[in-house]
Amino acid sequence: MRAVDIILKKRGGGELSREEISFFIDGYTRSDIPDYQASALAMAVFFRGMTPAETVALTESMMRTGSVLEFPELPGPKVDKHSTGGVGDKTSLVLAPLAAACGVYVPMISGRGLGHTGGTLDKLESIPGFNVRLSLPEFRAVLQKAKLGLIGQTPEIAPADRKLYALRDVTGTVESLPLIAASIMSKKMAEGIDALILDVKTGDGAFMQAFEDSRALAQAMVDIGRGMGKKVAALITDMDQPLGRAAGNSLEVVESLETLKQRGPKDLESLSLELAARMVQLGGLASTLEAARGQVRDALASGAGLRKLQEIIELQGGDPRVCDDYSLLPRARETVDLKAEVDGRVTRIGCRAAGQAAMLLGAGRETVDSRIDPAVGIVFHKKVGDLVIPGEPLLTLHVNDRSRLDEALALLRGTIHLGPESPPAMPLVRAVLD
Amino acid sequence: MRAVDIILKKRGGGELSREEISFFIDGYTRSDIPDYQASALAMAVFFRGMTPAETVALTESMMRTGSVLEFPELPGPKVDKHSTGGVGDKTSLVLAPLAAACGVYVPMISGRGLGHTGGTLDKLESIPGFNVRLSLPEFRAVLQKAKLGLIGQTPEIAPADRKLYALRDVTGTVESLPLIAASIMSKKMAEGIDALILDVKTGDGAFMQAFEDSRALAQAMVDIGRGMGKKVAALITDMDQPLGRAAGNSLEVVESLETLKQRGPKDLESLSLELAARMVQLGGLASTLEAARGQVRDALASGAGLRKLQEIIELQGGDPRVCDDYSLLPRARETVDLKAEVDGRVTRIGCRAAGQAAMLLGAGRETVDSRIDPAVGIVFHKKVGDLVIPGEPLLTLHVNDRSRLDEALALLRGTIHLGPESPPAMPLVRAVLD
Repeated sequence: MRAVDIILKKRGGGELSREEISFFIDGYTRSDIPDYQASALAMAVFFRGMTPAETVALTESMMRTGSVLEFPELPGPKVDKHSTGGVGDKTSLVLAPLAAACGVYVPMISGRGLGHTGGTLDKLESIPGFNVRLSLPEFRAVLQKAKLGLIGQTPEIAPADRKLYALRDVTGTVESLPLIAASIMSKKMAEGIDALILDVKTGDGAFMQAFEDSRALAQAMVDIGRGMGKKVAALITDMDQPLGRAAGNSLEVVESLETLKQRGPKDLESLSLELAARMVQLGGLASTLEAARGQVRDALASGAGLRKLQEIIELQGGDPRVCDDYSLLPRARETVDLKAEVDGRVTRIGCRAAGQAAMLLGAGRETVDSRIDPAVGIVFHKKVGDLVIPGEPLLTLHVNDRSRLDEALALLRGTIHLGPESPPAMPLVRAVLD
Repeated sequence: MRAVDIILKKRGGGELSREEISFFIDGYTRSDIPDYQASALAMAVFFRGMTPAETVALTESMMRTGSVLEFPELPGPKVDKHSTGGVGDKTSLVLAPLAAACGVYVPMISGRGLGHTGGTLDKLESIPGFNVRLSLPEFRAVLQKAKLGLIGQTPEIAPADRKLYALRDVTGTVESLPLIAASIMSKKMAEGIDALILDVKTGDGAFMQAFEDSRALAQAMVDIGRGMGKKVAALITDMDQPLGRAAGNSLEVVESLETLKQRGPKDLESLSLELAARMVQLGGLASTLEAARGQVRDALASGAGLRKLQEIIELQGGDPRVCDDYSLLPRARETVDLKAEVDGRVTRIGCRAAGQAAMLLGAGRETVDSRIDPAVGIVFHKKVGDLVIPGEPLLTLHVNDRSRLDEALALLRGTIHLGPESPPAMPLVRAVLD
């Protein structure tokens, strides 16, 4: 078998066999197949696409280049969630403890964020002492004890994906649906889980802006997961305004804790509850979705979710007192309000620009080497549909470094649109694939 | 400017600017832009194509990565020919001396062959002592003296093309019309010529099998040449059977000499005369094509073409006695005839398979590192339309190494098709772009 023949076959629109795909991926991971052949294949895949069978084979091949975890010692369903990411998306911090409190084992392996604000790992690390770099035995131990563990990607998981993703980033081959789906799923399927709920964002602040693209990505990932024998469902959810009110790492930890105390923003609460309920249902711990929703609501109302988060913070070396005393979290030196100049209703919040502004303040990474400032970010006081009076603060910036503050303010000023009437309400969950 | 943005622009179907193309080509030649970005761009070009303006800019950028020759000291038109190559194509050895004998300066820089049989260089090197590696001053000197010089590609000519071609070969990006056209023309336009005649082959034994593809390639190259201020015309010629009767390096030298003695095969003679006449006309040495044809016919009939070839052989260190004594050329140890088993008319000679058979005997290169045996090859006794009687030899193989003889014979047996009637005669020159 020759790499160039595999490239030519895909270039001509042919369907690659399982053997051809694993020959290419294994060879590429070992560097027997050079970057220049992999980038040519990726570009051919961009133009020609991949069949569901090819996409499953690609995912499995990438997964098998690394370790595939198994947790035979855990006596219950193991379920995780993956989100394609968006501004203010902190549902993991809310739903993971809720699902675990309902009896689901949640071995959550997260990434760091690029752009916008940080990823789940960055948010957790704003909690003093919280260690996301557990060894595998330590991860097993916390899972056994708390039904929950929150760690970062280890180098042993799907090394092919890390290598290929870095290559795609510099060769104009990121935006290929099968490559995106296989990249995500090769890591998730290595986690030793029985089931997975996907939260695929759609809209201005999402990776995929168009609803149909988001739905196609969700379907591709559901197909892959099922093709690999897992239970998988997907929600396609709105990212046309930030989720909740906070964007910025410690600000989002506070908002997550508030949500677990039933004082959070409605949109964040309802999406977190829905995703957690899907995890309970996919895990087989409830006979109907309605029953699962009831269990999750009970875990919220009883405080079991909050206690679970506090437990895992302590188990992973963090300071559990942050749950009651937010002043223990990093705080910015100053706050700057952006005030309304006219009155009206908020018709739109440009989500992408808002994320960009948070990044300028230091809440997100501009490049993979950037350092995140956990204290900074933005709190939105107004959401779409809210009434605004001149002089009212639209949002508050939490600032440590003023050097790019003006740039951030300019972006934000153009981002909140006011009009005479509320736009028609858009459901948060736009579609369900189950 | 970033390489990835240029890739993304082409991927999206955009037209690259002259600046973007030269940024990419210069960066790639200096290795500032890595192979993996160049292969991704090449694949995007395969799918998206290039406009005529982009193709000219690409050709000029590649040409300018190396030396561009100039011959201000030569007091007449400088014209070359380029053929896209085919089985038995030895017109260069006939037309170059004829055109030079008519007063055209022919600074011919040729490549070596890959596949089939050798290139012009390989054929010349089968003449004992012939030196194709002249220095530039030596090349100038023979041109000044004989109006003709025959040398190999030097490393100073279009280094970008050499680098990019090697990359395309292993990344499935060879078959892109603008990339092929720019590759050929970047080298030819660096030769310091005023005009160029292109012989674009079409049919089973050609690089482009379909007539429309060949015409498109010819048009692209004519457009490039004219876009760069040169006189360029193209003939699209038949390659559905070998040109002439010989395929193999010293066998083709003999056939070329016979043609210059007016004893060559009709197809080879007429194509060589026509191409030489186009060179005379493009060079402005005849007022009409008919007049140019007359001059070239005279140079053939008077023996001036033959004497010109003999002169340049001597000037470039070869043994000029080969023109009269073919036994001074390398000869194979044995010959093997393939005889007809039934009678009929030759309806088709599978040209690609015939070239493959010649390569198996050692007449061509299987890989760039293969050594050519100048003595071996095939002589076809029957051409399309000829009557065949059982027991008559269809062709003769000239063999030194029997190890792949059976394989070659099997290929050849399947390659000559007989039928009850001659197929309709196909003109050798299928189309003219002038």
